[in-house]
Amino acid sequence: MDRIPILRMGRLLLVTIQIDLYDRLATNLETDLVQMVNKTEAKGVLIDISALSIVDSFMGRILGNIGSMSKIMDAETVVVGMQPAVAITLIELGLELKGVHTALNVEKGMELLKEKIGNYDEDLTEDDEDSTE
Amino acid sequence: MDRIPILRMGRLLLVTIQIDLYDRLATNLETDLVQMVNKTEAKGVLIDISALSIVDSFMGRILGNIGSMSKIMDAETVVVGMQPAVAITLIELGLELKGVHTALNVEKGMELLKEKIGNYDEDLTEDDEDSTE
Repeated sequence: MDRIPILRMGRLLLVTIQIDLYDRLATNLETDLVQMVNKTEAKGVLIDISALSIVDSFMGRILGNIGSMSKIMDAETVVVGMQPAVAITLIELGLELKGVHTALNVEKGMELLKEKIGNYDEDLTEDDEDSTE
Repeated sequence: MDRIPILRMGRLLLVTIQIDLYDRLATNLETDLVQMVNKTEAKGVLIDISALSIVDSFMGRILGNIGSMSKIMDAETVVVGMQPAVAITLIELGLELKGVHTALNVEKGMELLKEKIGNYDEDLTEDDEDSTE
């Protein structure tokens, strides 16, 4: 497998990372995600890492990168489902995931994004409102 | 990795299958999913298989099993993101995925489930209504 699927849900994109990201997979994910944000005009990116029981500095950097890239594409990033051991490792490695929000699980992450970006659901089919000016 | 993460979203469960399911992984997924349906009272299960470019009879059987198990737990199953080649193979193998609904992508799958099970979103925080009888 050389691609991680990105699921579109309204104005959100959901990515579930289930395996260790090696170089090409990580690069593909970054590229795909930025392109998807552009194509779908997504306002939020949810990254679920509940399947990861260990994390290294490479993975930490990738998460940070994705956060920064999304940010300049005007989308918020929330990392959800982090296991306690992963949080410990990230801090011990000195990676604070700046620019990335975190939440306990997908539901809480969605609530957080909802607050941040407004009611994304309602925008789904209302893209082409006619403005009469 | 020996577990595929199951994400809870309101009354739905979302599973993204990204790698080939070998025996133990498939058995774990079946068990975890049934337990999650029981624990969370989920009414719908969404299985995204967009990352699978090939499928064999084992995988087809697992999908069918999950559908049947969810059904007797009173939850609907929708398989989404099937690639054309996978659809061709499934039919050629004689696997019609009975009892499993399909949809083109996660969004359409969610709409389908919404129709089938009603507005699951609204039930999220209204589990403990007091019935005065």
